[in-house]
Amino acid sequence: MGKKRAMVPAQDVDLSSVKYEPQVVQAPHLTGFVLGLFVRILEAPLIGPIVLNYLKKENKFDEQLRHTVIPEEPMFKPEYPPQEMELGVVVLNEDGRPEDRVESALKCLPRYDHAESWENSSASFRYWKINDYAYAYRSRKVTPLMVAERIISIVEENGRNKPPAPLLISFDAAEVREQAAASTQRFEAGNPLSILDGIFMAIKDDIDCYPHPSKGGSTWMHEVRAVKKDAVSVSRLRGCGVIFIGKANMHEFGMGTTGNNPNFGTTRNPHAPDRYTGGSSSGPAAIVASGLCSAALGTDGGGSIRIPSSLCGVVGLKTNYGRTSMEGSLCDSGTVEIIGPIASTVEDVILVYAAMLGSSPANRISLKPSPPCLPTLSFKDDSNALGSLRIGKYTPWFNDVLSTEVSDKCEDALNLLSKAHGCEMIEIVIPELHEMRNAHVVSIGSECLCSLNPDCEDGQGVKLAYDTRTSMALFRSFTAADYIAAQRIRRRMMYYHMEIFKRVDVIVTPTTGMTAPKIPPSSLKSGETDMQTTAYLMQFVVPANLLGFPAISVPVGYDKGGLPIGLQIMGRPWAEATILRIASAVEKLCGESKKRPVSYYDVLRAN
Amino acid sequence: MGKKRAMVPAQDVDLSSVKYEPQVVQAPHLTGFVLGLFVRILEAPLIGPIVLNYLKKENKFDEQLRHTVIPEEPMFKPEYPPQEMELGVVVLNEDGRPEDRVESALKCLPRYDHAESWENSSASFRYWKINDYAYAYRSRKVTPLMVAERIISIVEENGRNKPPAPLLISFDAAEVREQAAASTQRFEAGNPLSILDGIFMAIKDDIDCYPHPSKGGSTWMHEVRAVKKDAVSVSRLRGCGVIFIGKANMHEFGMGTTGNNPNFGTTRNPHAPDRYTGGSSSGPAAIVASGLCSAALGTDGGGSIRIPSSLCGVVGLKTNYGRTSMEGSLCDSGTVEIIGPIASTVEDVILVYAAMLGSSPANRISLKPSPPCLPTLSFKDDSNALGSLRIGKYTPWFNDVLSTEVSDKCEDALNLLSKAHGCEMIEIVIPELHEMRNAHVVSIGSECLCSLNPDCEDGQGVKLAYDTRTSMALFRSFTAADYIAAQRIRRRMMYYHMEIFKRVDVIVTPTTGMTAPKIPPSSLKSGETDMQTTAYLMQFVVPANLLGFPAISVPVGYDKGGLPIGLQIMGRPWAEATILRIASAVEKLCGESKKRPVSYYDVLRAN
Repeated sequence: MGKKRAMVPAQDVDLSSVKYEPQVVQAPHLTGFVLGLFVRILEAPLIGPIVLNYLKKENKFDEQLRHTVIPEEPMFKPEYPPQEMELGVVVLNEDGRPEDRVESALKCLPRYDHAESWENSSASFRYWKINDYAYAYRSRKVTPLMVAERIISIVEENGRNKPPAPLLISFDAAEVREQAAASTQRFEAGNPLSILDGIFMAIKDDIDCYPHPSKGGSTWMHEVRAVKKDAVSVSRLRGCGVIFIGKANMHEFGMGTTGNNPNFGTTRNPHAPDRYTGGSSSGPAAIVASGLCSAALGTDGGGSIRIPSSLCGVVGLKTNYGRTSMEGSLCDSGTVEIIGPIASTVEDVILVYAAMLGSSPANRISLKPSPPCLPTLSFKDDSNALGSLRIGKYTPWFNDVLSTEVSDKCEDALNLLSKAHGCEMIEIVIPELHEMRNAHVVSIGSECLCSLNPDCEDGQGVKLAYDTRTSMALFRSFTAADYIAAQRIRRRMMYYHMEIFKRVDVIVTPTTGMTAPKIPPSSLKSGETDMQTTAYLMQFVVPANLLGFPAISVPVGYDKGGLPIGLQIMGRPWAEATILRIASAVEKLCGESKKRPVSYYDVLRAN
Repeated sequence: MGKKRAMVPAQDVDLSSVKYEPQVVQAPHLTGFVLGLFVRILEAPLIGPIVLNYLKKENKFDEQLRHTVIPEEPMFKPEYPPQEMELGVVVLNEDGRPEDRVESALKCLPRYDHAESWENSSASFRYWKINDYAYAYRSRKVTPLMVAERIISIVEENGRNKPPAPLLISFDAAEVREQAAASTQRFEAGNPLSILDGIFMAIKDDIDCYPHPSKGGSTWMHEVRAVKKDAVSVSRLRGCGVIFIGKANMHEFGMGTTGNNPNFGTTRNPHAPDRYTGGSSSGPAAIVASGLCSAALGTDGGGSIRIPSSLCGVVGLKTNYGRTSMEGSLCDSGTVEIIGPIASTVEDVILVYAAMLGSSPANRISLKPSPPCLPTLSFKDDSNALGSLRIGKYTPWFNDVLSTEVSDKCEDALNLLSKAHGCEMIEIVIPELHEMRNAHVVSIGSECLCSLNPDCEDGQGVKLAYDTRTSMALFRSFTAADYIAAQRIRRRMMYYHMEIFKRVDVIVTPTTGMTAPKIPPSSLKSGETDMQTTAYLMQFVVPANLLGFPAISVPVGYDKGGLPIGLQIMGRPWAEATILRIASAVEKLCGESKKRPVSYYDVLRAN
């Protein structure tokens, strides 16, 4: 008795009385044998539910989802009424040819000048951009085949690591050579397909890239699900001439944020090989950060693009929910997940994004997307366009990080931005962040479980990594009514954010609450469950997933140990152009002091 | 191992190979002490889940929702692209004044002629229509106050029944007199608000009607939830001058289809007092069938308007999902439930529907409703309009009833329709009806549980009727992943039906698979759980709920025992006008031999 609580309707919540509550997660940190034991306890018929109930009680799942009257109707997908057009943008045709969209994107960017790009820069280090490859190919200094050979030898070398720490978990040198030869021929014939022709990319292992299998980082998914063609997003890139080097490593089924993978080995952070890349798109971020490819595709259902991008010092775009097609990915039915690009610069993110975007007709039934737009970065009045932007910041949340170096660097970047462009900083308040996190876990977990259920019930469940099994045990404990209650929370949070977006254009936070964590050696063989680390890694990423907003992580510097720090810029519904514009400005202001990763492969110059 | 199944995508299913599988439900029929014991077993920590799992296994819940790969994305709400306008309709303004809509509706109906209405009819029995009351009031033969007194005395007499079998469970004679006096004054001043002024209606107990409490047929809901104003639909009717006599009895929280209510007593079928009314809108249907009120509002999440309308021999409209506002009802967050009218004639259903329709702005965010329309029944070319209609019938399903009298009578009505108007009958096939039923139970059950959870966890759960507790135990066993899988089934079924609706305009079935069942005396005190009866009652109602379509039940005759039989006409998305038009034609063809119910109160003439 007396457990019942009631929320007042979201529109009646007095924001001035909202107090920030620091995130406190109660769960053990386990690796190795103890983790294996814990999984067996969780999965046991009688004791399992007791342990789970204890963990859920500590994190207030039942209190928030079962004992609380939430007056809002459930909102099952993050859908918004059509939004106002952003300023200074070029509209792309979602149903047009990818090559044409890339061409439009190119016109939005500053004109490429090879000499200027390389010689006049004061940067201590600089990644090879798509435009650099394009220039090198077109000026016949190098061919895609030459680059391919260099990449193949690096990947093969990387494959000999002990213990294994693969960037790719599916790779076929002959197949890469074949694609590169075709691209080389197109250049020889003077007919490249687009600026992306001959550009090397890696695809996260949960997105189909024919003829590779899609394992989702597991040991068995390819045995029960055949890949017969490219995912829609991959196929669009292929049509632009992109060369795919293989399937990038990932946290098993995306159910983790470190990138730990006991099945194939854990990808190492190119800036510090004893540290995690972050996840779940561990391979994609590390491949880009190490200079092996210009770009990669990842998936992001709970920060899985932004977290590793932040920890590896590259740029990662979480697109608006429904902006990109999920057809041909392992998660083709969720309400929080998207496919998005990772690249070393905002410019390259823009080029890849332009090619791959567009929902599938099947996804479109109840969505009313605003058209995809790109910012016109090449215009001289860029700074004026930025000056009118209002930047929202919830300071106590912004500062709730493991090390203040993270929030300080992000703060510095914002100060530079404010100084250089005159953007206005506006203090905001976001209530019910804890409820939002629980609603997100219930949503993503249940959607994931629904997809995996038939195979897990069919005997594959025991082949999962221990930490995945821990998560699955939690997800199985969510009732259908919990899921619906979570969707009521979703509607509340959508309301709060849309109210905030009346006052600001973007919301900024650090991307993660910490820099790359160390890999405990005991976790390599059997994995790790560490909810504290997870909580700091996911501290700021959840709203964009549960509420569908676009968000981007852009590097703003390093901590004292030389580990990258990322700033997250989250935009209003469908407003990818605005966050790309701001990210580009931040990049210019902070990118000059870029550090060369320890594992950096100078793929292009080497030829 | 080997439990995994996979469905082929809905568009690849070969309909010619679909075989109809008769419905078989496995569950015990329990009443009295044994039911109480069963509930305690179900709610016990260790044995409960075992019994539930057995019941769920028999009904293939896990097989269909956990072990089967369903290739479709989840569809959380039944939403459709905008539909083509129906033919021969008048468009109503959803945002306009209810009085104006009623005025438009009146123009769609044949001109009222009192003499013609009563004297030229060959009908053996005829209910007083709204137009009859309107004529009587306007010709000063009678006043609303006089009718009120007659109703009050009947309700008070009904209240003295032993054992109690109430039509209303909240009633205040003084409050009824007050409304009637105000209406009478308006007539005296020559200013009635609309044709509905002075019309008496009852409101199901799960819809707010100030100042009555909303108990939802339970003993405690009013203690935890105060009613401060009318529900939106009630308020629209009140604005037209409707007089509300109180809150009609119902199956507790709508979680049953018989109308059994051990809390207040079970409403009796006006055609046979030893039989159920059907439910859950038991009171509303019985009040209309007994002639006490012209109309009533019910809710329908799983046939709850149509089933009792069919069993009591009146007309019940399940509106399209989202057509009417759920604001101010106990179920304001579901994906299957609507509020709709029950009346003795199609004409009266049209008048009440016109006044009450219109979603609340809050519900509208992701809906793209076609505008509400009414059929122009007064036009001379009615028969031509009907002649172009194609009527779909899945014969093996249509005939899968407890007694062939039910399907035979419905078949007779369709033959009359075909003969009189030349409608084309088209044989259709609907696959996966069993999957659809399970998906519906998971959806409505989980949504209901989510609403009731905070109070049940707070100690109210033990105050529920035994059969509600049985249902709640089942609903608690559904996982979030089950719910999502059910939404995948929903999308498949939406696809199949939209394909069928390319070939036909409506789908017809009997409304229920049986006529009114007997009330076991042992069930009066502590309720009853009889899944076999439930299955026959719900045999045909589920598609309109899970898939959102409008559907109407119209009386077509009686079985040998004199119990009413209803025909269900289900339309394509938003097409209420088409089913109202057909229902009106069926009514004309079958209504001539209407039987006077045993409990009939000649409210108007008596004055």
